[in-house]
Amino acid sequence: MSAPAPVVAFGELLFRLTPPGQRMMVQADSLDLIVGGAEANVASGLASLGHAVRFVGLVSDNVLGDRAVSALRGAGVDTRFLARAPGRMGLYFMESGAGPRPAAITYDRAGSAFTCADPSDIDFAGALDDARLLHSGGITPALGPAGMALARAAHAAARQAGVPICFDGNYRAQLWQSWDSDPRGILRDLVSDATILIGNHRDISLLLDRPFSGDGEDRRREAAMAAFDAFPQLQIIASTARHLVTASHHRIAARVDRRDGAHQTAEIDVTGIVDRIGTGDAFAAGVLHQWLEGGDAAAMAQAGLALTALKHSIAGDFCLVGRAALDGFSASGGDVRR
Amino acid sequence: MSAPAPVVAFGELLFRLTPPGQRMMVQADSLDLIVGGAEANVASGLASLGHAVRFVGLVSDNVLGDRAVSALRGAGVDTRFLARAPGRMGLYFMESGAGPRPAAITYDRAGSAFTCADPSDIDFAGALDDARLLHSGGITPALGPAGMALARAAHAAARQAGVPICFDGNYRAQLWQSWDSDPRGILRDLVSDATILIGNHRDISLLLDRPFSGDGEDRRREAAMAAFDAFPQLQIIASTARHLVTASHHRIAARVDRRDGAHQTAEIDVTGIVDRIGTGDAFAAGVLHQWLEGGDAAAMAQAGLALTALKHSIAGDFCLVGRAALDGFSASGGDVRR
Amino acid sequence: MSAPAPVVAFGELLFRLTPPGQRMMVQADSLDLIVGGAEANVASGLASLGHAVRFVGLVSDNVLGDRAVSALRGAGVDTRFLARAPGRMGLYFMESGAGPRPAAITYDRAGSAFTCADPSDIDFAGALDDARLLHSGGITPALGPAGMALARAAHAAARQAGVPICFDGNYRAQLWQSWDSDPRGILRDLVSDATILIGNHRDISLLLDRPFSGDGEDRRREAAMAAFDAFPQLQIIASTARHLVTASHHRIAARVDRRDGAHQTAEIDVTGIVDRIGTGDAFAAGVLHQWLEGGDAAAMAQAGLALTALKHSIAGDFCLVGRAALDGFSASGGDVRR
Amino acid sequence: MSAPAPVVAFGELLFRLTPPGQRMMVQADSLDLIVGGAEANVASGLASLGHAVRFVGLVSDNVLGDRAVSALRGAGVDTRFLARAPGRMGLYFMESGAGPRPAAITYDRAGSAFTCADPSDIDFAGALDDARLLHSGGITPALGPAGMALARAAHAAARQAGVPICFDGNYRAQLWQSWDSDPRGILRDLVSDATILIGNHRDISLLLDRPFSGDGEDRRREAAMAAFDAFPQLQIIASTARHLVTASHHRIAARVDRRDGAHQTAEIDVTGIVDRIGTGDAFAAGVLHQWLEGGDAAAMAQAGLALTALKHSIAGDFCLVGRAALDGFSASGGDVRR
Amino acid sequence: MSAPAPVVAFGELLFRLTPPGQRMMVQADSLDLIVGGAEANVASGLASLGHAVRFVGLVSDNVLGDRAVSALRGAGVDTRFLARAPGRMGLYFMESGAGPRPAAITYDRAGSAFTCADPSDIDFAGALDDARLLHSGGITPALGPAGMALARAAHAAARQAGVPICFDGNYRAQLWQSWDSDPRGILRDLVSDATILIGNHRDISLLLDRPFSGDGEDRRREAAMAAFDAFPQLQIIASTARHLVTASHHRIAARVDRRDGAHQTAEIDVTGIVDRIGTGDAFAAGVLHQWLEGGDAAAMAQAGLALTALKHSIAGDFCLVGRAALDGFSASGGDVRR
Amino acid sequence: MSAPAPVVAFGELLFRLTPPGQRMMVQADSLDLIVGGAEANVASGLASLGHAVRFVGLVSDNVLGDRAVSALRGAGVDTRFLARAPGRMGLYFMESGAGPRPAAITYDRAGSAFTCADPSDIDFAGALDDARLLHSGGITPALGPAGMALARAAHAAARQAGVPICFDGNYRAQLWQSWDSDPRGILRDLVSDATILIGNHRDISLLLDRPFSGDGEDRRREAAMAAFDAFPQLQIIASTARHLVTASHHRIAARVDRRDGAHQTAEIDVTGIVDRIGTGDAFAAGVLHQWLEGGDAAAMAQAGLALTALKHSIAGDFCLVGRAALDGFSASGGDVRR
Repeated sequence: MSAPAPVVAFGELLFRLTPPGQRMMVQADSLDLIVGGAEANVASGLASLGHAVRFVGLVSDNVLGDRAVSALRGAGVDTRFLARAPGRMGLYFMESGAGPRPAAITYDRAGSAFTCADPSDIDFAGALDDARLLHSGGITPALGPAGMALARAAHAAARQAGVPICFDGNYRAQLWQSWDSDPRGILRDLVSDATILIGNHRDISLLLDRPFSGDGEDRRREAAMAAFDAFPQLQIIASTARHLVTASHHRIAARVDRRDGAHQTAEIDVTGIVDRIGTGDAFAAGVLHQWLEGGDAAAMAQAGLALTALKHSIAGDFCLVGRAALDGFSASGGDVRR
Repeated sequence: MSAPAPVVAFGELLFRLTPPGQRMMVQADSLDLIVGGAEANVASGLASLGHAVRFVGLVSDNVLGDRAVSALRGAGVDTRFLARAPGRMGLYFMESGAGPRPAAITYDRAGSAFTCADPSDIDFAGALDDARLLHSGGITPALGPAGMALARAAHAAARQAGVPICFDGNYRAQLWQSWDSDPRGILRDLVSDATILIGNHRDISLLLDRPFSGDGEDRRREAAMAAFDAFPQLQIIASTARHLVTASHHRIAARVDRRDGAHQTAEIDVTGIVDRIGTGDAFAAGVLHQWLEGGDAAAMAQAGLALTALKHSIAGDFCLVGRAALDGFSASGGDVRR
Repeated sequence: MSAPAPVVAFGELLFRLTPPGQRMMVQADSLDLIVGGAEANVASGLASLGHAVRFVGLVSDNVLGDRAVSALRGAGVDTRFLARAPGRMGLYFMESGAGPRPAAITYDRAGSAFTCADPSDIDFAGALDDARLLHSGGITPALGPAGMALARAAHAAARQAGVPICFDGNYRAQLWQSWDSDPRGILRDLVSDATILIGNHRDISLLLDRPFSGDGEDRRREAAMAAFDAFPQLQIIASTARHLVTASHHRIAARVDRRDGAHQTAEIDVTGIVDRIGTGDAFAAGVLHQWLEGGDAAAMAQAGLALTALKHSIAGDFCLVGRAALDGFSASGGDVRR
Repeated sequence: MSAPAPVVAFGELLFRLTPPGQRMMVQADSLDLIVGGAEANVASGLASLGHAVRFVGLVSDNVLGDRAVSALRGAGVDTRFLARAPGRMGLYFMESGAGPRPAAITYDRAGSAFTCADPSDIDFAGALDDARLLHSGGITPALGPAGMALARAAHAAARQAGVPICFDGNYRAQLWQSWDSDPRGILRDLVSDATILIGNHRDISLLLDRPFSGDGEDRRREAAMAAFDAFPQLQIIASTARHLVTASHHRIAARVDRRDGAHQTAEIDVTGIVDRIGTGDAFAAGVLHQWLEGGDAAAMAQAGLALTALKHSIAGDFCLVGRAALDGFSASGGDVRR
Repeated sequence: MSAPAPVVAFGELLFRLTPPGQRMMVQADSLDLIVGGAEANVASGLASLGHAVRFVGLVSDNVLGDRAVSALRGAGVDTRFLARAPGRMGLYFMESGAGPRPAAITYDRAGSAFTCADPSDIDFAGALDDARLLHSGGITPALGPAGMALARAAHAAARQAGVPICFDGNYRAQLWQSWDSDPRGILRDLVSDATILIGNHRDISLLLDRPFSGDGEDRRREAAMAAFDAFPQLQIIASTARHLVTASHHRIAARVDRRDGAHQTAEIDVTGIVDRIGTGDAFAAGVLHQWLEGGDAAAMAQAGLALTALKHSIAGDFCLVGRAALDGFSASGGDVRR
Repeated sequence: MSAPAPVVAFGELLFRLTPPGQRMMVQADSLDLIVGGAEANVASGLASLGHAVRFVGLVSDNVLGDRAVSALRGAGVDTRFLARAPGRMGLYFMESGAGPRPAAITYDRAGSAFTCADPSDIDFAGALDDARLLHSGGITPALGPAGMALARAAHAAARQAGVPICFDGNYRAQLWQSWDSDPRGILRDLVSDATILIGNHRDISLLLDRPFSGDGEDRRREAAMAAFDAFPQLQIIASTARHLVTASHHRIAARVDRRDGAHQTAEIDVTGIVDRIGTGDAFAAGVLHQWLEGGDAAAMAQAGLALTALKHSIAGDFCLVGRAALDGFSASGGDVRR
């Protein structure tokens, strides 16, 4: 039994600490501990669908890091290329929100072991040796000069190994503004390596420094075509459009653009929302699932939509949807399955 | 103070094991333990309304069985005729579901002490000696040859004692398919003993091996009349029609057919659903409550509807609605009662 | 740093004991313990907005009383004028309700240390010495002759010290009916001391013993004008109108009447309701916040509406909304704040 | 199957409310809810051993009372003679203690529905009609004139029906001092009806108003003989001697005196104490168990000792030890039973 | 980075379901869910110490099986050779015990997917291809003819691949007695394949059908020598001696016999016991850890003793002790490590 | 009612995050959140005994800081001089330990808002204006140059205001070693300002750079006299001697040295330990309590010993012992207080 070629995800592992139920932080006597991170969430989603997935990165060499590694392993992700080093875990504290009170995040991720890592601490070449895909994204380079160097090293190793790259825009203004950064320049470089981009017309506007004025699907197509022009390597652009009805009821549509056409799904109602965090990453996992299976734009959009919708019903960052649940997806859920 | 004549319920007691909140099984570090079983749920519903109720059956003679007995006693049900014998408890594991992720049940009830019992292990005659009604249903005979024998013995004892029978169809394809069974034949025999049938046009189609092609109320009336023709002893057929809006919002109507006419309630909105399990049993309890009180078809349908609606707001299998709450039922609930 | 002049709130501190989740009392193995009380809730709301607030009253001199004092202190309220005396805590037990099952309260507050207190047990003059406002309400006098005496003593001390009074009607029929009381007479006396009245046309009908027959805003204005006529000291009347859609979705509008005009807000949807208790007190806190800041009728109505809406999303009696959350209020909440 | 003659227990049902773990009350955000009461605890102990047990008394006719009834029923006790009436539940709040911090109880039981009941509210004659024994005790008459009247009525009904009485001294100074009481006179009257007394030399000193100066077993025998002299009906006196090593390690011996001799067990070590409350009641249940089985003084003392020791390992007031666990009792417990 | 040669563990994965705290089963409203199984526990212990470990076996192909797989993966064990098949999970229910009340297990593992598996369902050859050691034990063959066949197939594959075997006696009389079994014959065959035996003189008595009459260390040495005579392949016998002081305080010594000598450690006090289950498996893991590192008898005995002692402080079946904690082991624990 | 002169405590507020029960971090799905910090713990202890206490310092101006402030307020401490500023909260993660597994702390406090504060951010002069005592300690200056500056500023303000200083050595090697520090020089300067020193002979050795070779009390007296020589302002030195029997059983003695003599208490057994953290701070609070009351060395040592012993029974950092519990202290605790 020789192991299948894995998807490799690269990024930071974080702890989410959140008061139980809908308590506010000021009322909290305990905090639920959830392990996540944008790229780890994608890894969990692909592993749950049965794909071989490897996570590469670096995490604290203490009991907190052990906890993070255990979560990723529990989700079926290969962590042999997850380096360990002294330093703190990145954290974020989250209040869950309800009705008119929005969920709110207080970041405490600066100075983490990952943020302080040097590219030489991580064996990118080894991790990518036999890989089918590298999944990385826009949070790592936003963490500071060290994060930028890590992101560049990951891309370089993938290019070297001939491994295609999926890049998730994940633009976080707050992080970019915390240091003397050039987000456009850095992100352009990284996106220019990518075969797949997870991002919408706003991400592309930012990258290309131009507005897209049209409406709805037209604007999205125009932006996609501009990106395809600017980034010759790029083959696929995937995005969602989300409309908030209430905190526990959103409407979502998914879209995949290729150079030769696009598919946009109908908008579906997602009700009974349990956890909003990680739903974008679940979308990416759904798209990549179909890309790995050889699906077309419609299949990728549909799988992305289904996985993001299902993730809204799952507590925690990780997407734990198996293939049967994905195949049997219906937006309305339905009665108890006996 | 001489004890009033009891309703006797007969069936299996089960443990429901379910991850807390809306966690998936793969995330569970603990499981909520709930005691239930279709007929026990009906027993709990009638006892909570103040009726004398006795449960007859057989349960493991270990600490798990003690737990089940304690729950039934706690609900006010007489358990003196609940035999104890070696063997395992029937279990089912349930994930709660949310939004597009349906609740899902994994059964682990095969080979339970009840499923392996012999009719002679249970004192049906003693239990039914002074009874007003026997409540049994279609799950027991579906459990296998032993279950079929138990169901037949219960009915025989009731016939012997001149006690009328209420039979709840509760058709479970999965159970019937797990052995070399003849569901139609077995269920026809059992229904032919019944004075009251809980079941809709689909149950009757199955019993009579014929479709009912009409629409809405017409189809239901046609099916009921066919059942009255086929089963001379049958006087009452009670059923609900349920429409799922979202996982926490259903629309439900109730209907009672008698030989000389029928009553179907308006459809009501049931929102804020806490627990879907046992709501059909609560409907049966509501119908039987009015039957015991001498109510007409409209009263039975209305009480069944109210009890099933209220049960959706109660965690666990058991229906714990008292007479005041039933009498004060309003589908909209209303503001805090101070 | 000399301390700013405080708002003084006066009333009883209570324990709310409620089964976790949506369990019924008969299912409870534990009870959540929440400290509250109408006037304490207002105090918590104002303190959370940064106002200096002092609570005056009397609470059991045992570990239960310690718990209540700790909660109030934790919310930032000065408790130096909260006397301690032997006797029990006032309690109420609450089932949370869901869908058609309304939340229900079982009171157990008779004979509490507060209810048995004598005006001389409490240093009203000291507490009010340097105060900007006294907040009291209609529950204290409803508790019996001792409560009535306490309420009168509080008002007398405020008059003596030249401190304006805000009086919240909070009419509780059940309490008034439990003794040989004259609610109208007692409440008229107390309202005649007030500069601000929290109460709607039904409260005014009761006070003035006359109906107001108009519709909507007209009826409310007519009632307000009648109250201004009857109570020469009265300058402001604030009220809400609430419409229940489901147990977790209400529609609410707020209104403030002044002698020279009124402002009524548009009705907003409050969804995802976590806790209904204390939302009226949060409204009062919002109105008083703007009164303290010198806001006009519209500002008071808007702040009251925002604070009551936000309180629906907060578990417990206390209103823990800070100034930034109030300023950023939007009825729809919105996506996660990162 | 005709029901066996039951033991009848009479007393008040209480809620114990205690912070989880070893939290202090001032730290509590929730309270564990436990149903108990000295005589109900004895009832639970006998029912768990398989004896027919009936509880007679009166409890609130609200959801709190429902909770208490459910607990007693769940333990297998017949509650048909438990009257329901308006009024509050008796409560007590308990901090658990640890090491040098003793567990501490704050009572809040005054004015409960039971304390306010009239003998005519309770059908003592019906409950005792076919009984083998009445178990009552010294807490009920200590509750005030109404409690005293209830205790006398229970005894009178037992005398009338020829049912022997077991009386548990349970002297609570705090309760007797809360009203203008004559504890010695009242208790002497009640003990003079008893065949069995649960109490030690200190209880007898109090009853007979004389000291017993000897040491150890001699003093206990002297006291017992004095009690047999004073109370001609009395046949059995059962007591324990307890020595505290630490909060979770006690040493206990048990003793039963008969007119013709006595048996005192060796002292055993009880370690790993989970719950101290109800251990005296478990002792009474053990003694009565052997009395019902026809055991001699040694058997009664031994069963009492075993049951009280085992109860220390069980959370809650109730003694839930089955016959197999009692028969297999070893003070040292032993390794996991597989 | 080529993967190191793994230790392969083979056995059944089970769920332990246990009421929280020290509740009895009859009091349980929820059950803690713990994944374990003797050989999986050894696997977790070795993986936590940094060894490459692979688990081979078969588990239910449903969400329960997913949970079990996730736990094993989370502990760092390679589960690629863990087959999935229809059928139930083996379960056991456990009450925790306290003081005189022993922990008690109710098994519900009959008929599990593993128990019904055929050797051809599991890829033993693949799993053992590159292995350093096979760890198996006496529970699998005790499960019935199918279990026996699985155990034999595992050993055969190891022999074929030239992989040494460690066999843990783990004699379970209850399992062997549940079918028409020949434990001695079956176990002799399996032990004859082993290089390492985890078992004491009682296990050897059973295997060889003869008593060992000496005292203490002499008896243990005599038994070991008899085993070395009977099983020519056997090189190492490891065992513990345990003395129960109280349920939370044991005294334990460890011993390793080789053909040319033995080492028995001093007895140490293990206090503050959190979880007794899996402590024998932790001992085996400690012995194997030193065997893999090339340690002598003393090193094996010492590591076994340290790991078993530390496991008593860890909740759950798995041994999660890292190398630093093992190296820093002191029986007295010591003050907080800052 | 004019407010009494407060004790002022100065230091950092921290969050302790610890897995519930005795779980290891790698097993944690939630973390208990506890607010503490050495000087805040002393503040809580004095406030619980009824002293006026003010806390001065600086904490994050976000919801985490709100939580910390709320805890301190809830304990009755005046927080008006607690500044708020951007930045993170200091955290530490703690595993609880059991038996041979010691509790272990992972610090994550570097770069906190407090650690980055400038003396000018805090109104030391205002806070100390009317104070009786300043309590500070050796952790603040160990945090780095900024912490050192804060500590010096606090002392300078106290000297300016003529307020005596109590300094708790609290030597933390790990913190001092994390920067280019001169612990001896810095601490000597700070101790030279102190009237009271909490610290033992090891702390004094470090300050004076010399060993104390004697035994037991002699060595302690010699060290104390050396400190009195070196620090002319110093009047009182208080310390404990702790001996660990097991993780839940320690033996502790307390000692107070004055220039003219000393008092050392007998050693007491502290069993049933719930929480070790903050027990040293409770000792300091007990000593200061008697100093504030004018007690002699024996009274200070005795109160310190009692408070530290009682704190071992209280979960969390804060010492919540009231005056009655302190006065009624007995090392053995005793039976339930009814």
